[in-house]
Amino acid sequence: MPRVALGIAYDGSHWLGWQTQPGGRTVQDALEAALAQFLAEPRVATICAGRTDTGVHALEQVVHLDSHAQRRPESWVRGLNALLPSSIAVQWAQAVPDDFHARFSARARSYVYVLRNSRVRSPLQHGRVGWVYHPLALAPMKDAARRLLGEHDFSSFRSSQCQAAGPVRTLHALEVEQYGEYFLFTFRANAFLHHMVRNLMGALLYVGLGRRPPDWMDELLAQRDRTRAAPTFAPDGLYFVRADYPSAFGLPENRLEDLVQSHLGLAAGAC
Amino acid sequence: MPRVALGIAYDGSHWLGWQTQPGGRTVQDALEAALAQFLAEPRVATICAGRTDTGVHALEQVVHLDSHAQRRPESWVRGLNALLPSSIAVQWAQAVPDDFHARFSARARSYVYVLRNSRVRSPLQHGRVGWVYHPLALAPMKDAARRLLGEHDFSSFRSSQCQAAGPVRTLHALEVEQYGEYFLFTFRANAFLHHMVRNLMGALLYVGLGRRPPDWMDELLAQRDRTRAAPTFAPDGLYFVRADYPSAFGLPENRLEDLVQSHLGLAAGAC
Repeated sequence: MPRVALGIAYDGSHWLGWQTQPGGRTVQDALEAALAQFLAEPRVATICAGRTDTGVHALEQVVHLDSHAQRRPESWVRGLNALLPSSIAVQWAQAVPDDFHARFSARARSYVYVLRNSRVRSPLQHGRVGWVYHPLALAPMKDAARRLLGEHDFSSFRSSQCQAAGPVRTLHALEVEQYGEYFLFTFRANAFLHHMVRNLMGALLYVGLGRRPPDWMDELLAQRDRTRAAPTFAPDGLYFVRADYPSAFGLPENRLEDLVQSHLGLAAGAC
Repeated sequence: MPRVALGIAYDGSHWLGWQTQPGGRTVQDALEAALAQFLAEPRVATICAGRTDTGVHALEQVVHLDSHAQRRPESWVRGLNALLPSSIAVQWAQAVPDDFHARFSARARSYVYVLRNSRVRSPLQHGRVGWVYHPLALAPMKDAARRLLGEHDFSSFRSSQCQAAGPVRTLHALEVEQYGEYFLFTFRANAFLHHMVRNLMGALLYVGLGRRPPDWMDELLAQRDRTRAAPTFAPDGLYFVRADYPSAFGLPENRLEDLVQSHLGLAAGAC
């Protein structure tokens, strides 16, 4: 049966995460309902690149599904978007070979966390941007981030409910940038443990607030003990941005910076 | 009774506009309920600088009220924000003289309209950014905007439900800027008629889409006939930004650019 890949953006503040649940209030449930209607099939199963938790957003979640339906890419996008709620939208559709798998073919995943550091909360950013009241220092967070790069046992940043086979992951990139009141944290790894980005955020913010020094990260990695690290930070500003696949599959190769600018605001285009 | 001014930001997509209604789902109803609770008074009346419609947002709506309560500015902000829903937040509070009036003391009001021009909608911007599918041209919109500046009879851009005494207003500024996929429209006038910004947006977009030439604006102003102009555009991307008051009142003088950057995203800070 021919296989199709879809690039999906969603506002996770309306949903109980990606993965299907009996209650049905998940992104996967909404997408599969729209697919079933669009394809006039009783049930369409989907697999995604990276499952997201309640309240976590996506700019280019990659999903694959199998269907005998013959549609042009533009028809998939328009047809599904007419059926999907306003908080979910297909960005692109593309035919892929049978051996493409949204989860297992992915070589790496990228997330960003958008944080506003301000005395007063903004109601225009609620649910989509994390908020910290006390002043954050950039340099110590950059130092802390550097210490997390590479292959490590990330047990100190792993949820007790994590179902992964092991705690070792390779963090390819962790950048911290400041834009006025905003901090943008970019994470890229071969894969992430459950709550790993939010747990890393909790620890990075402890360093940014001056509660811990940057080399606390070395200790936490060595201790491999979740109870020593900081609390899990809020999901509000967390976005699954994109996954890297072998170029042979021919999927769109949108840059992370472009996806962030396109979906999250005026950003660097103002220069 | 001492008078206090508040700067208020809100996400209008949750509310039936500013002005109180019997059903109570307005920003004024929510703010007055929080004020009554905070001040332990049965009823607190508020007046705002510019009433906004259903779905229209505000970055620094100015509101005044009278109360015998003695509170520090920080206490007003923290106390009210703890009681207000997530879609409304007080940004500052300040004691003002008895002759300050949020509406009648205002010399000018500024609005921005944020528009995304893209083939596919973004669920991350729903309700907060207008969306146009067909490509927009910047230069003709700038030309059209220039023709609207100054004192005019704006009857062609006035809602039939407008309760203002007359249709003449002075448009001090109308700027159109492009940031990648985004267009930012900035309006500043002594005052605005009902639906005036959304009606101007409708006409500017007809020009940007090539359906009408820029000098259509001269015709519309001369015709003074609402039925000749374009439909009222969606409220989604419309923000009341700020009002200008005589400096003697000593209110915060936040720059429009700074308010837009602070509440709407990374913007120019990325440069």
